[in-house]
Order: sequence, then C-alpha cells, then structure tokens
Amino acid sequence: MPVVLMTDFGLQDIYAGVMKGVIGRLAPQATTIDLTHSIAPQNIRQAAFKLRNAYQYFPAGSIFLVVVDPGVGSTRRPVAVSAGEYLFVAPDNGVLSYVLEAIGGKSQAVEIRVDELRLSSTFHGRDVFAPAAAKLAVGAGFEMLGNSVSDLVMLPSPRLEIEQQRIIGEILDIDQFGNLITSIGEFNHNDDELELMPVFGTSRQRQRFDKERARICIRDTVVDAVQHTYADVEPSELLVLVGSSNFLEISINQGSAAQHLHASIGDAVEIMVGG
Amino acid sequence: MPVVLMTDFGLQDIYAGVMKGVIGRLAPQATTIDLTHSIAPQNIRQAAFKLRNAYQYFPAGSIFLVVVDPGVGSTRRPVAVSAGEYLFVAPDNGVLSYVLEAIGGKSQAVEIRVDELRLSSTFHGRDVFAPAAAKLAVGAGFEMLGNSVSDLVMLPSPRLEIEQQRIIGEILDIDQFGNLITSIGEFNHNDDELELMPVFGTSRQRQRFDKERARICIRDTVVDAVQHTYADVEPSELLVLVGSSNFLEISINQGSAAQHLHASIGDAVEIMVGG
Amino acid sequence: MPVVLMTDFGLQDIYAGVMKGVIGRLAPQATTIDLTHSIAPQNIRQAAFKLRNAYQYFPAGSIFLVVVDPGVGSTRRPVAVSAGEYLFVAPDNGVLSYVLEAIGGKSQAVEIRVDELRLSSTFHGRDVFAPAAAKLAVGAGFEMLGNSVSDLVMLPSPRLEIEQQRIIGEILDIDQFGNLITSIGEFNHNDDELELMPVFGTSRQRQRFDKERARICIRDTVVDAVQHTYADVEPSELLVLVGSSNFLEISINQGSAAQHLHASIGDAVEIMVGG
Repeated sequence: MPVVLMTDFGLQDIYAGVMKGVIGRLAPQATTIDLTHSIAPQNIRQAAFKLRNAYQYFPAGSIFLVVVDPGVGSTRRPVAVSAGEYLFVAPDNGVLSYVLEAIGGKSQAVEIRVDELRLSSTFHGRDVFAPAAAKLAVGAGFEMLGNSVSDLVMLPSPRLEIEQQRIIGEILDIDQFGNLITSIGEFNHNDDELELMPVFGTSRQRQRFDKERARICIRDTVVDAVQHTYADVEPSELLVLVGSSNFLEISINQGSAAQHLHASIGDAVEIMVGG
Repeated sequence: MPVVLMTDFGLQDIYAGVMKGVIGRLAPQATTIDLTHSIAPQNIRQAAFKLRNAYQYFPAGSIFLVVVDPGVGSTRRPVAVSAGEYLFVAPDNGVLSYVLEAIGGKSQAVEIRVDELRLSSTFHGRDVFAPAAAKLAVGAGFEMLGNSVSDLVMLPSPRLEIEQQRIIGEILDIDQFGNLITSIGEFNHNDDELELMPVFGTSRQRQRFDKERARICIRDTVVDAVQHTYADVEPSELLVLVGSSNFLEISINQGSAAQHLHASIGDAVEIMVGG
Repeated sequence: MPVVLMTDFGLQDIYAGVMKGVIGRLAPQATTIDLTHSIAPQNIRQAAFKLRNAYQYFPAGSIFLVVVDPGVGSTRRPVAVSAGEYLFVAPDNGVLSYVLEAIGGKSQAVEIRVDELRLSSTFHGRDVFAPAAAKLAVGAGFEMLGNSVSDLVMLPSPRLEIEQQRIIGEILDIDQFGNLITSIGEFNHNDDELELMPVFGTSRQRQRFDKERARICIRDTVVDAVQHTYADVEPSELLVLVGSSNFLEISINQGSAAQHLHASIGDAVEIMVGG
C-alpha cells in the first residue's frame, strides 16, 4: 500500500526527499505518492481541508504521512490513527480533524513511541513520522507503534451559518488557478436546484435553493447564479460553481478569481438564496 | 509501463496527487512519472511543444496522461490515442498535435466514454483521464475505452518562414533558466554548418547556413554566430546555440536570457543566414 | 536500489521528467526518488551541502544522480564515484566534495565514457548522467562505465574559524522556511553544553561552550543563548538552535529569519562563546 505524503516542507529543500529515503530504508517495497508538499507553512487548517478532499481517491490501506507541525520539538504528541480503510501518521494538532469527521465511525489512535536518542529537535518528519509510516507499510501491527490514546486534538469547525434566506461561509483554500474554495458544501445536484448538506458549522439542517436565483456575495462583488462549469461564462468572467470537492467555488474562466477580487483565506462568502 | 503525467495543475494543490491516487486504486502495479505539472495555466501550445520534445525518451508503451484543459466541462471530447510505440490520454484540444506530427504514420483514436454519474464539472483529470490511463495501464484493450474518432483537433503550426537569406521563427517556450526556445529546428550538424530541417511552418525546404556567419536578431539585439555550448562564451554573455531538443535557443551563460532581453513567448526571432 | 535525483533543473520544465524517462527505458525495474530539483541555478556549493546532509538517510546501495553542471558541454569530466555504501554520478566540478569528506575512507572514481554521437551540448543529464545511473541500477559493474580517475575536483572549505572566545562561520543555505543554516557544526549535545566538532575549515580542534552563555551575531543582530527547539521562544521571535543536520541554524518561530534579517548565503555568523 502506498505511503502518501503531505507536508509544508516544499520541494526546494531536501526534507521531503529525505523522508522518502527513510521510508526506502525501512520499507524497501513501499511506494510513495506526493499528495502535496506545498501546504502554506504551518497552516494546519489548510492541510486538514486538503486532506479531507483527497483521501477517498487513494487505495484502501493507504498510509497518509502528514507533517504540518508548528509544535515540533514541543510536547504535542505524534500519533497514528486508523479510520475507515485508511491509516494516518501525523502530529496531534488537529490536522486530521476534517478527514476523521468525513470518514466518520470509530477510529483508533496510538501515541507513537519515540526513540529520544535518535531525535532532532526540528525534523520529526524524518525522525518520527516517516519511520512510523514505514513500519505500518511493512505490516507492523498498529498497536506496536505505541499506546492507545483517545482524546485527539480537533480544530474548531470552519464558518458555515445557515439561515432562512442566506448561507454564510468562508474561503478555506485558494488553489493555484486562483479559484476560491469555500466552506459551503457538500451538495446534492438536481436539475435546477442545489441541496446543501452542511459539512462544517454546527447545523446539520439541509437547505435547498435554486441555482438561477442564488446571489453570491464575496467582498464587494455580487455574482448571479451558480453555473455548471467554467465554460458557461466567457473567458475572464467571474462565476460560481460547485467544485470538484463538492464545495462552492468562486472562479474566473481562464483567470484568477483570487487576484481579481483580492481575496484571502478566511474572507466571508454569503449566498442569498431567497426569491 | 509507466503512466507519465503532464498537467497545468501545479504541485501546490492536491490535484496531481489525487490523479495518482486514482491510478493507484485502479492499477496498483502501475508506476507514475511526473513529466511536469507546471505548464502555464491552460497553455495548450506550450504543453504540446514540451510533450513533443519529451516523449521519445520514455519507454515504449508509456501512457502519457496530459491534462491541460481550458474546455473542461464543455463539449470538447476526451480522447485516447495510440501512435507509434506510445499511448496518449488527453482532452481533444490540440495538445497532442505536435507529438502526433513528430511520431508520424497512422494513429488510432477513441473518444473516451464517460460515466456521467461520477463526473465533476471541473476535474476530469480525476474523473475521466486518470481512470482511462489506469485502464490502459492494466492492459485494457484500447477500443474498450470508447468509439473510434478520426478528426482530432490540431493546432495551427508555429511560425517558421524560410527565405533565401533569412529564417523567421518565434519563441515557443522559456525554460526555468531563462533560455528562449524557438520554433527554428530541427538541425543536422556538420562541422561549421547547420542544416535546418523545418518542423513547423508550411515549407519543408531545407536550408543550410554557416554557424559563424549567421546573425540572430531577437527584439533589438543582434547575436553573432551560433555557438556549440554555454561555455563557449564568458559568464553573463548572450549566445545562440542548438538546444537539447534540437531547436535554436537563445541563452546567457550562467544567466537568464529571458530577463536580460525582456523576452516573451511569441516574440519573433530572425536569423540572417546570408553572406 | 533507488536512483536519487538532485538537480537545478526545477520542475517547471521537462528536464527532470525526461531523465526519469531515460532511466525507465534502460532500467525498467529501478525506482527513482527526487531529493530536490530546486538547487539554485548552477550553485555547486549549495548542492554539495544539501547532498552531504541527505545521503545517509537513503538505503545502502542508493545511486545519487547529481546534475548541477555550469560547465556542461565544456571539458569538465562526467564521473561516477563509489564511496561507503553509496554510488554517485555527477559532473566533476566539486559537487561531491562534502559528501565524500563526510563518508570518508577510500573512494573509487571513473570517468564516464561518452557516446559523442548521441550527445547534445547542453543536456548531459539526459545524455550522459541518467544513462550511467541506469546502468549502475541494473547492476553494471562500476568499471564498465569508464576508466579510473583519481584527482576529483574538490571545493574550498566553507568558512569556519575557531578561536579561544569565538567561532566564526558563514550561512551555507537558506531553507524554504527562511531558516539560516550555517557552516558551524557538527555538535555533541550535553545538557547545558554544546561541543563543536568542526566539519569545515582547517582546524579540527573541538570547542565546548555553554548554551545559555553563547551570544550569536548575525548581521547587526545579537541573539542570546542556543535553544533546543522553535517552541522555546514565542511565535515571531528570533532564536538559534542546532538544526536537523546538526549545524547551527538561525530561525524565527513560525516566521522567516531570512526575511527578518535580510540575510543571504555567505553572510558571516559569529558565536561569542566566552564567559
């Protein structure tokens, strides 16, 4: 089963490569896949959201090695978690929150036992997390890594407020094309209607609305209607659609919505669904 | 046989990694190689040129998974193409034009049958192209993917005009070192002479010229002679040579010609070959 | 055994991917690992330092394919080197200096025989180095690659001066987080003391000093004490620690020391160890 790597180490340095070297030493048969190494530095929430949107496309049994670790060297715990068909190795700082919520059901976690003698104070990806993932990859029993723990750190939920006539969310991620990915999802699709089945926020109340009649407000701009795809508007035109991870996205056909709107992660997004 | 990925998705997001996850699910034995994920967004022509210059170095049987797809979600067709010793999976938007011309001979193409139920409107790399490549990787017959098509979209040829005393081309790509790669190629090398065997443009007329006597004009700068390699001039000095893909390149030894000349893709390049 | 790639080719172009294609053609069973392709263009010394800090984490038998090659096309020799448990393929320009010093003992080197007919003048990564690494990966005897050579090019040692009351080094690398990695290392760790066992410079004299009483000067800033890890200071605060490669690093907790101090590679760093 592949070891899937997600870090904020970037590709400029040797850090991601060295983790693969460690895996190659301990688990010569294991394959590795880079999910991304370009999480914004120490941005636990961005990593948590990306991981949630990616995990289900990987083979059952995949081992996700997630190192976004502002608390490295402090007392935050290194953990391994088994949930659904997948295994996760990460610092216990909330980075697994959203994926564990998405998988649902019961998960098991252990605190990874650390060999203090072989430990740097700044690169636990190499010294703790990659070795643990490699042990899982060669089939080591989960419980061999350390003792059970049950109180994993969870992130607060992203903003998602559902009212009679409007839905308020926030920008959770901006991709390389400048698409703004919001906390507003997931959706059931009908012909002219969308049904919001809220993932985040405190309410699980579903909300249906008409794609044509929705008005989306982002910063000082209002966009009319939810489209199906980029090509539904002219090049350089702003549009709103349900993106590939089933969250509402604000985009520009063949352009960057982030640049055009000067938008940032955390900005509020509001849908007026009323008629 | 490896699946070779080329996209404009970048490495900052999860998109390239998710495609590899999909391949791992459907074709656990397949290996993947990243050709590049840094095609300029939606730049079909740049991707077409890079693919043409790369394909022949990969093992026979390689499956090229090419996703540069400004028309995603519209009616452009997803296709799989068999040409020479290679297979290609891509949107039918011209991105395979140059590689198919380079391979020559007869190619076969099918329109990939799409499962509408599992289809996002924006990420056919995940939903259409990666699954098709994975099916080919596990040995699915080409014709299992869909019905034959014969009228693939082809890009217009890049500029390449051959006259008695001069050759006019354009900059087709700028690499990370700032080298300007032109449409002027390919070349037979003799001691002091180059023989141009035009790849692009309408003329197939060959043109010989003396390396020492050629004068190359790019923007307002004239460079004397075609050199053999970077080290033939001093560091920071401008030079012209035949690059690794056998096209004329304008470079600076240990510097960036793109920055120095403020050059852009599409700029005209002229060789005065006369004497 | 994996082929481990380190180049300054970046990931924007096809160059790194094409090298993997060549390896796939000649050594279909070989796996490849990217150490990094983002060495600063033609920066031999940075590559040499990163390689030194990475090699030992890879499996015994790994083949390091290192292409940072400002002299490509000139008369610099392509070499393959066997040292300790590892093999290296690189231009003979000093890029292997630090790793060979770190491995120590006797190494063997051959000049790679080149097929002039198949040689571009600018991309020996594809035409010379990747084929040589692939031959080693399929088990070709080392001596099959070419004739023995013994006088490899070595870089001058980075600055490291050890005096009674102070140690002077230089910044050798700046990582993606903005951490400044110096030539001052390696260290034995005791509770309150560090013992410097100099890697660079001309002196091999060890120097002990008290972590609490050390004063580190970098540009016009003085930092008190050597800390254990980032979390020992507040976010955005400057600190000095022994980094993951066992060299002294100057960092900002959850920030960029490089930006804050406007520091560059080559800047002097001084430790006043006195009491």
